[in-house]
Amino acid sequence: MITEEFGKRVRELRTQRALSQEKFALHIGMDRTYLASVESGKRNISLKNISIIADGFGISLEELFKNL
Amino acid sequence: MITEEFGKRVRELRTQRALSQEKFALHIGMDRTYLASVESGKRNISLKNISIIADGFGISLEELFKNL
Repeated sequence: MITEEFGKRVRELRTQRALSQEKFALHIGMDRTYLASVESGKRNISLKNISIIADGFGISLEELFKNL
Repeated sequence: MITEEFGKRVRELRTQRALSQEKFALHIGMDRTYLASVESGKRNISLKNISIIADGFGISLEELFKNL
């Protein structure tokens, strides 16, 4: 499922940066439990929130969706 | 705004294929008026619907978000 693939990608990018869910969520102004549910693939996240996550990682949307 | 950029990209890909909104919407099982509002940048579209649009064009999400 795409929500699960996306969640894994977000988790991968976050852990590559050695950031906890708490730190990254705070950095992008997102609730920690919401971020956790996105990473678990339980959320059908919206484009605006996807864009906030890409910005938080300092990457393009194209890069965020790489190989997905 | 990201919803506007995304909408323009969808319109660009659709018109490149010489498809009307009606034909493409029918092809992907989406309401024509919903597709029109996405192309106009008025919808904060969800990941699942973004994925349906990419599949409809026969491209990856990475390609759909190219240069966005």
